[in-house]
Amino acid sequence: MPTFKPSPMLDQMHNLVTEIQSNICTALETLDSKKFHTDTWQRPGGGGGATRVLEEGSVIEKGGVNVSKVYGDLSGQEIEMFKTLVARVAPEIVDQLTHASFGATGVSLVIHPLNPNVPTTHANYRYFELNTEKDHLWWFGGGADLTPYYLNEADAIHFHQKHKEACDTLSQTAYPSFKQECDQYFYLPHRGETRGVGGIFFDYLRQESKETYFQFAKTCGQAFIDAYVPIVSKNRDMSFTHQQREWQLYRRGRYVEFNLLYDRGTLFGIKTNGRTESILMSLPNIVSWKYNYHPEAGSAEEKLTQCLQNPQKWV
Amino acid sequence: MPTFKPSPMLDQMHNLVTEIQSNICTALETLDSKKFHTDTWQRPGGGGGATRVLEEGSVIEKGGVNVSKVYGDLSGQEIEMFKTLVARVAPEIVDQLTHASFGATGVSLVIHPLNPNVPTTHANYRYFELNTEKDHLWWFGGGADLTPYYLNEADAIHFHQKHKEACDTLSQTAYPSFKQECDQYFYLPHRGETRGVGGIFFDYLRQESKETYFQFAKTCGQAFIDAYVPIVSKNRDMSFTHQQREWQLYRRGRYVEFNLLYDRGTLFGIKTNGRTESILMSLPNIVSWKYNYHPEAGSAEEKLTQCLQNPQKWV
Repeated sequence: MPTFKPSPMLDQMHNLVTEIQSNICTALETLDSKKFHTDTWQRPGGGGGATRVLEEGSVIEKGGVNVSKVYGDLSGQEIEMFKTLVARVAPEIVDQLTHASFGATGVSLVIHPLNPNVPTTHANYRYFELNTEKDHLWWFGGGADLTPYYLNEADAIHFHQKHKEACDTLSQTAYPSFKQECDQYFYLPHRGETRGVGGIFFDYLRQESKETYFQFAKTCGQAFIDAYVPIVSKNRDMSFTHQQREWQLYRRGRYVEFNLLYDRGTLFGIKTNGRTESILMSLPNIVSWKYNYHPEAGSAEEKLTQCLQNPQKWV
Repeated sequence: MPTFKPSPMLDQMHNLVTEIQSNICTALETLDSKKFHTDTWQRPGGGGGATRVLEEGSVIEKGGVNVSKVYGDLSGQEIEMFKTLVARVAPEIVDQLTHASFGATGVSLVIHPLNPNVPTTHANYRYFELNTEKDHLWWFGGGADLTPYYLNEADAIHFHQKHKEACDTLSQTAYPSFKQECDQYFYLPHRGETRGVGGIFFDYLRQESKETYFQFAKTCGQAFIDAYVPIVSKNRDMSFTHQQREWQLYRRGRYVEFNLLYDRGTLFGIKTNGRTESILMSLPNIVSWKYNYHPEAGSAEEKLTQCLQNPQKWV
């Protein structure tokens, strides 16, 4: 048990993200010939998780939906790792932080479909807390974004619309702000491209009550299903060419580059000795890199590239 | 032109690495049905390079041999990026470093063969200098390492032996020290594995004269050809199964993980706005990730994995 007691929200949120995981897997399983396989694992320092993976399905080539609840004491070098997080929510306590306990729970998923006409997607909803003798710091984070291989404006609008409706339950300023944060976060500076057509992204939410953000995470979890599942359902049986498949594998390279070079969750997980297989399940099962490749002028591939170089207002 | 004048070694070393590039490409072309294609490029801030790439050859599935000579003035945010380097060679000047010019030249290559029986290899020889009003800092770095998909002890020994002979021309302690640095550098902590069977790695060489290290780089460039080309020649026509090909694609995932998560050259290049295509030409053209994959007990695949978990003394 950690030195400082976790707050009730850690379990409350863990129950929610477990429910979101179950609902998402069930919804996706209705579209695929295969079922998710479940691995449960323990974290030596405290807590554990359940990683649900579907590989080589009829629709999903590789998909992972991971839930974890981890907690424990922090000191020495570990606490240094967390200071960058604490600096964002309580800069005044960073300097005297020598001993604390933390708790974190969340759901994180990446779905890589087989058909290049079906976009890849990622979503993540999480709660984090840090307890010291005097302080109880906490925040919520999360988001969902869509990464198409071929641009379908109606799908992008639908994905954003469903997430806008979820954000509107929090406030009228939430969607425009979280949409912009998403475009900024999922950006590859070395390519001058966003990862995909965006969605929403937020972190360090703590101004309102825990219950407010808990309800918001719940709303977002359902919104993700309403946003993504119809896009899969609509496009999964479209025919595609070998060349379109090659383009998909090439674009997946960008996904790998983003996740390994920039993604805060991936890097934090790897550096804090998290469970490697649960962190890197986000990587596609087949990927390709070509030297200095540029799609043909006027092609659908070039149209997507241009869209990623110029983030758009979808709703 | 940069404010402070580069030393003659910048051009001298650039000539050498251009010659090494040419010799290596010529040697590899004798084994392949395809030739290297050459792209020359300019760096906006000063200098440029020549990137030579061979894709989808009969022996080399993707190979890149890059030479660059870059230089320019550093100030503001750029100089911050270089302070971690300067801290290694002249910690006493880091604090007052506000304006400097730098020069760097080197050859860097990665060869990903098609046949899983032929190891991937990487080599890099480079010279770096930093000039201020008062100081002229310089150092050499480099190395070469071998990444097999199937362990062939004789090949590993041969690769190490040739590099040991090169190191022995510098000093008797060079090989044991550079071999150990290689095992430490090409290590994936999140996998508990080295990237391959190692080779040599060194950085910040500056105790002897520039000419000493220049000659050493020259010797190493030739040693690399003597070390690698016979291994390719010997194994390129071996037959392989679909399952062995899959294992190769899976292992290539580790190569991508290392390069994007840890490789100092890659990360430095990406963060300092280097030429993306020349930096990421190191990534294989087809790669796969499988969730929580473990090779069968007693298999050749498991034998390799165990070797990577326990670095060995080869010569």
